[in-house]
Amino acid sequence: MASPNETHTLDELCINTIRTLSMDAVQAANSGHPGTPMALAPLAYTLWTRHLRHNPRDPHWPGRDRFVLSCGHASMLLYSMLHLTGYDLSLDDLKNFRQWESRTPGHPEYGLTPGVETTTGPLGQGVANGIGMGMAEAHLAATFNTPAHTVVDHHVYTICSDGDLMEGVASEAASVAGHLGLGKLIYFWDDNKITIEGSTELAFTEDVLGRFAAYGWHTDRVEDGNDLEAIDAAIERAKADPRPSMIAVRTVIGFGSPHKAGTEKAHGEPLGADEITLTKQALGWPSTEPFFVPGEALAHMRAAVERGQGFQDEWQGRWDAYAAAEPELAKGLTDALARRLPEGWDADLPVWTAGDKPIATRAASGKAINALAKRIPWLMGGSADLAGSNLTHIDGAGDFEPGSFEGRNLHFGVREHAMGSLMNGMLLHGGVRVYGGTFLIFSDYMRPPIRLASLMEQPAVYVFTHDSVGLGEDGPTHQPIEQMAALRSIPGLVDLRPGDANETAEAWRFAMEHTDGPVFMALTRQALPHIDRTKFGAASGLRKGAYVLAEAEGELRVILMATGSELSLAMEARDALQAEGIGARVVSMPSWTLFARQPRAYRDEVLPPAVRARVAIEAASPMGWATWVGTEGEVVGISHFGASAPAKRVFQELGFSVENVVAKAKATLGMGDGSGGGQAGEAAAGPAKHGTDERA
Amino acid sequence: MASPNETHTLDELCINTIRTLSMDAVQAANSGHPGTPMALAPLAYTLWTRHLRHNPRDPHWPGRDRFVLSCGHASMLLYSMLHLTGYDLSLDDLKNFRQWESRTPGHPEYGLTPGVETTTGPLGQGVANGIGMGMAEAHLAATFNTPAHTVVDHHVYTICSDGDLMEGVASEAASVAGHLGLGKLIYFWDDNKITIEGSTELAFTEDVLGRFAAYGWHTDRVEDGNDLEAIDAAIERAKADPRPSMIAVRTVIGFGSPHKAGTEKAHGEPLGADEITLTKQALGWPSTEPFFVPGEALAHMRAAVERGQGFQDEWQGRWDAYAAAEPELAKGLTDALARRLPEGWDADLPVWTAGDKPIATRAASGKAINALAKRIPWLMGGSADLAGSNLTHIDGAGDFEPGSFEGRNLHFGVREHAMGSLMNGMLLHGGVRVYGGTFLIFSDYMRPPIRLASLMEQPAVYVFTHDSVGLGEDGPTHQPIEQMAALRSIPGLVDLRPGDANETAEAWRFAMEHTDGPVFMALTRQALPHIDRTKFGAASGLRKGAYVLAEAEGELRVILMATGSELSLAMEARDALQAEGIGARVVSMPSWTLFARQPRAYRDEVLPPAVRARVAIEAASPMGWATWVGTEGEVVGISHFGASAPAKRVFQELGFSVENVVAKAKATLGMGDGSGGGQAGEAAAGPAKHGTDERA
Repeated sequence: MASPNETHTLDELCINTIRTLSMDAVQAANSGHPGTPMALAPLAYTLWTRHLRHNPRDPHWPGRDRFVLSCGHASMLLYSMLHLTGYDLSLDDLKNFRQWESRTPGHPEYGLTPGVETTTGPLGQGVANGIGMGMAEAHLAATFNTPAHTVVDHHVYTICSDGDLMEGVASEAASVAGHLGLGKLIYFWDDNKITIEGSTELAFTEDVLGRFAAYGWHTDRVEDGNDLEAIDAAIERAKADPRPSMIAVRTVIGFGSPHKAGTEKAHGEPLGADEITLTKQALGWPSTEPFFVPGEALAHMRAAVERGQGFQDEWQGRWDAYAAAEPELAKGLTDALARRLPEGWDADLPVWTAGDKPIATRAASGKAINALAKRIPWLMGGSADLAGSNLTHIDGAGDFEPGSFEGRNLHFGVREHAMGSLMNGMLLHGGVRVYGGTFLIFSDYMRPPIRLASLMEQPAVYVFTHDSVGLGEDGPTHQPIEQMAALRSIPGLVDLRPGDANETAEAWRFAMEHTDGPVFMALTRQALPHIDRTKFGAASGLRKGAYVLAEAEGELRVILMATGSELSLAMEARDALQAEGIGARVVSMPSWTLFARQPRAYRDEVLPPAVRARVAIEAASPMGWATWVGTEGEVVGISHFGASAPAKRVFQELGFSVENVVAKAKATLGMGDGSGGGQAGEAAAGPAKHGTDERA
Repeated sequence: MASPNETHTLDELCINTIRTLSMDAVQAANSGHPGTPMALAPLAYTLWTRHLRHNPRDPHWPGRDRFVLSCGHASMLLYSMLHLTGYDLSLDDLKNFRQWESRTPGHPEYGLTPGVETTTGPLGQGVANGIGMGMAEAHLAATFNTPAHTVVDHHVYTICSDGDLMEGVASEAASVAGHLGLGKLIYFWDDNKITIEGSTELAFTEDVLGRFAAYGWHTDRVEDGNDLEAIDAAIERAKADPRPSMIAVRTVIGFGSPHKAGTEKAHGEPLGADEITLTKQALGWPSTEPFFVPGEALAHMRAAVERGQGFQDEWQGRWDAYAAAEPELAKGLTDALARRLPEGWDADLPVWTAGDKPIATRAASGKAINALAKRIPWLMGGSADLAGSNLTHIDGAGDFEPGSFEGRNLHFGVREHAMGSLMNGMLLHGGVRVYGGTFLIFSDYMRPPIRLASLMEQPAVYVFTHDSVGLGEDGPTHQPIEQMAALRSIPGLVDLRPGDANETAEAWRFAMEHTDGPVFMALTRQALPHIDRTKFGAASGLRKGAYVLAEAEGELRVILMATGSELSLAMEARDALQAEGIGARVVSMPSWTLFARQPRAYRDEVLPPAVRARVAIEAASPMGWATWVGTEGEVVGISHFGASAPAKRVFQELGFSVENVVAKAKATLGMGDGSGGGQAGEAAAGPAKHGTDERA
C-alpha cells in the first residue's frame, strides 16, 4: 500500500496519462476535441477507480454500472479510460483515432467499441439515454428483486457539458427523472464556463443547479475539478441521496495548456505540436514521445480488471443464490435480458374478418399491444401524454410511477423528444422492449433519437397515430404531410403503414421479431373497412413490404398501389376500373423499406417492369413515390399543407376519391387528362398555395 | 359609470359569454377543446379589457401589444375574444368553427384570421414565438428609440399550458429570455393540474416557477383564476419588474360544467348537449339558444374598438413627433417594418473567378452575409453556438446582448429548436429579417419551427453547414444523410445546395428577394473549386432551381445532374466521358423546389424527356431523385450512415469518384454493369449495413 504522497503522485501520473493520450490522439488525427478530456481526466479517474462497478473483460455483464459520456466530442476521454482500464481497445486503436474503419471514431459509437454504452455526440441525447437506463434499472429491480435477493442494483453515471444542458431534450428528460425520483442516477456537469462561441456569459447564464433542484434533483458542487477528494465526497453524498443527483464540477478546459487553457481554442481543434510540448512540460510529463504510457500508471489503472472480476464474482454469487431460491424469477429475468420470445407469444394476436365492424388501425394496434403484452412480460411502453388517442395502454399492467416501477405503462408527458431518447436508454440497458406513442406529426419533435436508434440498431417501436389529413378538424398544424417521406428517408428505419386491422396485427408480429433496428407504425385515427382476406391477398404479405392484394381480372393494364387508409380507396377504384373492363391490380405497400430489401425477382413479380401504368395513392407527400410508379406513373398525394375540416370533406377536396384515382389511372393509360377533381388532381398542373409542386 | 356591483355582474356576463361561445362552437363542430377556454375566460377578459393595447380595426398596427395563445387547442378562447372585441370575425365565423375554408380552424392560423399573431397548436412553439417577438421589440427599441422619443415600446402576453411547459423548446427559449432579461414578456401558465392522460401528478410534478426563477424570470402566482383583481394585480407587478414574468394562474378546466369541470373529460371533446344545458344553468346563463351573445356584454367588450383607436392615436402622435424630429430614424424604421431592400442592396455580393483559391460554400456564405448586412440594416442572425463554423457572424454589427440589443449578432446557445421558433417570433413581429445557423445534421432538432415557418409563409433563412459526409472525422453522428430529403419534403420550404461560391452568392441574393416562405442553404465544410463561369452556365441559373451548366460536346447521350460539393465531381466525370467520346451534359440542380416550379417547357429543356440516360450525384440519401433520373437512371448517393475518417477517404470509399460516376453513366447507356467501386456503387446491388436499399 503506497503512502498518501506516493498515491497522490501516482494519481497525478494516471490523470496526466489520460490527458496526454487525449491531446496526442487529437494531434495525430489533426482533428478532434482535446480540451474537455484534459479538464475531465481527474473526474473520470476518480469515478472509474473509486466508484464505477464494471468489468473490462466482460463489458456486457448485466450487473455493471453504466457510464455515459454525453458530451461525445470528448471521446478521447472515454477511449483513454477504456484502454487504460483494460478493455479490448489497444494503443494502436487510440493511434487510429478518427480514421477509416477504426474502433475510435470521432464520437463514441455503440456496438463498435467495447465499453461504449451509447452513441453520443448530438448534444442532450446522452443525458436522456442515461435516464432511460435508470428507468430500465428501476423497472427490473422492482420486478425481479426480492426482500432476500438483490440482483438488479446499479448506478448510472453520466458526464454532460453546458451544451448538453442547453438542449431541450435534456430538460424534458431531467424533469421525468426528478418526477420518478431515480436515485441511481449520478450526473456530472462539466461547468467550464466555455462554449464554442466563447464564454457561457454569451447565452447560458441560468442557474443550472437551481433548475435541477426544481426538477426534484439533489444538487451539489465541486469547486475544483482537480480535487479528487472533493469529487469522491460529492459522489458519496449523491449515492446517499434518494433523488437523482446533479453535481456541478468546476473545470478548466484544456487544463495544463499554457496558452489555450480556459479558452474556446482548447475545444475543437488540436493544440498544435508546440503547445503540446509546452503542456507536457507544464504537467511535468516524463516523456516527449507521443502516446507515452508510464508503466506504473498503466499497472495502476489495469487493476480495474481484477477489481472488475471481483465485482462480477460477487454479483454472480448473489445471482446463484437468487437462481436457487427463485428459479422462476431468475428465468424471467434471464429471458427478459435475452428478449426471448415465449412459446406462443403471438397466439392471441387478433384476426378480423370482412364482416367485422370497421375499426381504426390505431384501435387494432391497441388490441395487438394488449395481446402481446399479456404473453411478453418484458414488453412495455407508453405515450407522450396521448395514451387515450394512441391507444398504447396495457390493461392491468399498472403505471410505471414512483412506488410502482414494476408497472409497464410509461407516462412520458408532453415530451416527444425525451420519449425517444429515454426509449433508447431503456433498450440499451436491456431487459425490456419498449414502444412509444404520439401523433405522427410530432415525430418531427423526436427525429434525433429515432435516427440514433437506427444508427445503434436498437429495436424501438414508434406508434404514430393520426397519420394523415384523415384526422380532420385539428387542421394543418396536426395533419402530417411530409412525415412519411421524412421518416422513410432515415437509413434502416422500417416504415409500416398498415392498410387495415389485419395488416396492423401483422405489423406488430413483424415488429416483435425485428430486433436489430427501429420500426414505426403510421396508424389511422379513423375507422377502416377490413379487406376480405378470403378473396384477396393475406395480410402476412406485409412482411415483404408490398404484395399483390387483388389481381387484375383479365389483362393487367394498370397497377394501383396504396398504403394505410388509402388501400380501401384503391380497392374501390379497382372495382370501378374493372367495371369499365380495365384490368387493374392492387398492390398493398405498407413498407417501402421492407419491399426494397426483397430480391429483384419478387419486386418484379409484384411490380412487373413491363406495366408502366401505375398509380400510387397515399395521403401524404408524393416525394419518393417516383421510385415505384416511374416517370410515366401518377401519384395521388398531397404536396401542400392540409386543412381543418371533417375528414371526409378534406379527403374529397384533396382528391382522394374513386373518380380522381380512376381519372389518374386512365391518364397513365393515355385515356383522358387525369383531372378528377381535388387539389391533388390539380397538383399535376403546377404549383398551388403552400408549396404544391410536381415533385414526387 | 356602473356601480362596482353592476360592473361585477357585467364582468361575469362577459366572461360567461366567452365560455358559452366556446362550448357552443365546439359542440356545433362536434370536435374541439371546450375546457381550457372556459377556464381561461376570466384571464383573457381581464388582460384584454384592462391591459392589452391593441386596435381591433387595425390588427397590423406596429405599436400594438402582441398576444400569443400558445395552447392553440384553446382556439375558441381567442376566436371568442376576437369576435367580441370587434375584429373582423363574425358570429357566423364562430359557427363555422373547424369547417372547410372557415376562418376559425381547429388551431389558430397566422394569416388566415385577423388578430392571430402566430400559428399555434404544436405545443411549446408559442412560448418561444412570444420570446422571439420580445427579442425583435428589444432590438427595434434599442435601434430606433431616442431619449426624447419612444416609438417602439410594447408588451408580449402569452398564455401557455402544462403541455407547453413540458416541451423542451419552451425550456430552451425561456433560458434565452431569462439570459436576455426581456422585461416586456408577461407569460401566464394555465396551472390546471390536468393533462390529456389525467392528473399532472402522472408526469409533471416539477416546481415550474422554481425552474423559471432559475432561468432568471420574475415569477408570481394567482391562486384563483376567477379572481379578476388578483390577475390584474399580478399583471401590474409583472409590468413593474424588469425581468420576463411567468404568472401561474390556478384554474379549473371546464369551469362551470357540473360533471366535467376539473377533469380531462373537459379537455378534448364536446361537453355534450345535456352537459352544456346544465353548465349554462350553473353559470346562470340567461338563454338556452346556442351562440347567444347578450347585448350589454357585446357592447361592453366592443368598447375595445374605441379604446384601441385611442391607443393607436396616442402612438400616432408620438410617431409624428418622432418622424419630425428624427426623419432618418423614422425612415429607417419604416423601411425595416416594410423590409424594403435599399438601393444597391446586393452591390457588394462577391463574385469569384475560376482562378481564385477554392473556398467552402460556408465561407462564401459568410462573405455574402457580410456584404448584404452592410447595406441591409434590418438583416440580423446568428447560430446555435456554431458561429465560428457556420460563419454567420456579421463583422462590426455587435452582439445582441443585455445592454446592447441594437447588436445584430444573435447567440442562441446550443438550442437549435428554440433558434427556429425564436426566428419565427422575430419574423412575425416584423422589422427584422433573420437567419440562423447550425450543422445540417441538427436541422433534425428544429423541424417543427421550420415546418411552421413554411405554413406561416415566414422568410426564415437557415444556414446549414457541414452538409455531408464531407465533414469527415466527426463521423456518422454528425454526417447528414437523410436531411436533404427530409427537408425537401416540407411543403414550401425552398432547398438550396449551391455548387460553388458563386452559386452561394446567388443563393443569398435569391433568399433576400424571397419573402413569402423559408429557405435553407446546405453548405460545405470543405473547400470547393470555382466553376469557370466564362466557359459554363451562369450561377444565376440557381434561381430556376436547375440549369445546364455544361453542354454535351457532340451528341447528348447522358445527363449528369449534381448539387453542392458533387457538382465539380460531375464536371470531372463529364471530362472523362467526353474523352471517351460520350456526349455528357452537366445540370447543376441546387434546388428541387425551384426547379419543380418552372414551366414544363423549361424543365424539358434542361432535362429532355428523350434522354433517359441520367445520373444524379449527391452525397446524401437518394430518396426522391427518381423523379429526376427516372427509372432507367442511376443515383450516386448514400443509403446508409456515414463513417468517421478524413473526408477524401470517406468520399472515395462511398463511391464519390470519377470512376464510379463514369461507370454509372455507362450503365445507363447499357455499357458495363455500373460497378465503379465504393459502397454507393454496390448499393444498387441491394441491402448493406445500416439500411442500404435501392430506394431512390
